[in-house]
Amino acid sequence: MRRKARQATKAENRPRFWGRHAVAAALDNPERSVVRLWLTREAAAFLQPPEGIPVTFADVADLGRLVPNDAPHQGMVAEVERLDDILLADLLDEATDGRALLVLDQVTDPHTVGAILRSAAAFDALGIVTQDRHAPPESGALAKAASGALETVPWVRVVNLARALDEIAAAGFWRVGLTGAAEADLAAALGPPRVALVLGAEGEGMRQNTAAHCDSLARLPISDRIESLNVSNAAAVALYAAAVAGR
Amino acid sequence: MRRKARQATKAENRPRFWGRHAVAAALDNPERSVVRLWLTREAAAFLQPPEGIPVTFADVADLGRLVPNDAPHQGMVAEVERLDDILLADLLDEATDGRALLVLDQVTDPHTVGAILRSAAAFDALGIVTQDRHAPPESGALAKAASGALETVPWVRVVNLARALDEIAAAGFWRVGLTGAAEADLAAALGPPRVALVLGAEGEGMRQNTAAHCDSLARLPISDRIESLNVSNAAAVALYAAAVAGR
Repeated sequence: MRRKARQATKAENRPRFWGRHAVAAALDNPERSVVRLWLTREAAAFLQPPEGIPVTFADVADLGRLVPNDAPHQGMVAEVERLDDILLADLLDEATDGRALLVLDQVTDPHTVGAILRSAAAFDALGIVTQDRHAPPESGALAKAASGALETVPWVRVVNLARALDEIAAAGFWRVGLTGAAEADLAAALGPPRVALVLGAEGEGMRQNTAAHCDSLARLPISDRIESLNVSNAAAVALYAAAVAGR
Repeated sequence: MRRKARQATKAENRPRFWGRHAVAAALDNPERSVVRLWLTREAAAFLQPPEGIPVTFADVADLGRLVPNDAPHQGMVAEVERLDDILLADLLDEATDGRALLVLDQVTDPHTVGAILRSAAAFDALGIVTQDRHAPPESGALAKAASGALETVPWVRVVNLARALDEIAAAGFWRVGLTGAAEADLAAALGPPRVALVLGAEGEGMRQNTAAHCDSLARLPISDRIESLNVSNAAAVALYAAAVAGR
């Protein structure tokens, strides 16, 4: 997919990824520039870092100082450049029936977005769309939670989510907004071959203008024992339901 | 449900819960002893603490010092006693068709177990069963992730998980072990009216002896783009699938 080149990032602003899946996937991604690596000798046995990437061998405690508190680095830390931007139009060009698109409104927690990328890969979603101003940047915590999916699931950042939802509709997607306030059950809203699942942040939910740009609103069939699922679990369930309905 | 009284805990070992849902649910739970509360004046407007619980009014920064780094306390912190233990036999006595039971093998991360409790409440599960030695204790992080469900979803801790699985089978449950190595799809394994869903830890998965105590093994229908879902998302999807199949 075509990407819009970003400006090079100053070294101190480059994200550091850690953990086997995140680091191995970054090295496997031809679109990802890995600037340098720190490895324990044990971890090095699991990787074949391509030529030309500087590698520093260090012990577990040294690597621990390169990552936030207690982060489980599994002997691997990579300093990387952020991925270049993908255009929504390019992602929509690759749409096929049966593959859902995920739209996140103001989901800012990096662990949540990372876990959602992982679920998006698991259920073979087309990609995710977020609003640039209200979504987390690429980071080590996000990449770890994504378990490699940050490198394989197209992630489009848009300036205006309402306009993006118009573009998504024009590409033939039925836009289903998930909200506990809806009366329809999600399964009932999943007829059309191309579905965009729209989720809001925990607590506030979707903004009104986002909901106004959906074709239908639906709820997950949850009991009255609790107000809601967490956003990452809601996304996983919705992606599963869409994948099952799409077969 | 009958509970086996625990010994009183020393003050320094009592968990502290924070966040509106976790604290309000603890106060609402007649089985939960809340020893004391710290509240901001703003947060106090949302709660009616019962008589007899000492309340200290404090500002946001003071409350911040009572909880781990940056924990989002939302103006409420409660020091509590852990809940008394529930016997597996008592939980199984309350089993009804259509309500799944969740069994976790070596899932030790408190956020994961908390999120699973929340999903268990959402999909009206009977309860969860863990092995005492390989499960997290009640804690603030767990209660926060559970968003109140720690107070409402019965959680049985057993000494021996294999023996517990025998007892669960004797109560009429079909035990489905979730593993990526299985060939059968989860939906195909969900015929019986009473299902126990057995999940292992990330990475290692279920122990062999746990899998040997399941009636069937099944996998979530995920693509080959990723190895697995995270455990909390896998549990949410499995509980949803079981709830849909049980209707």
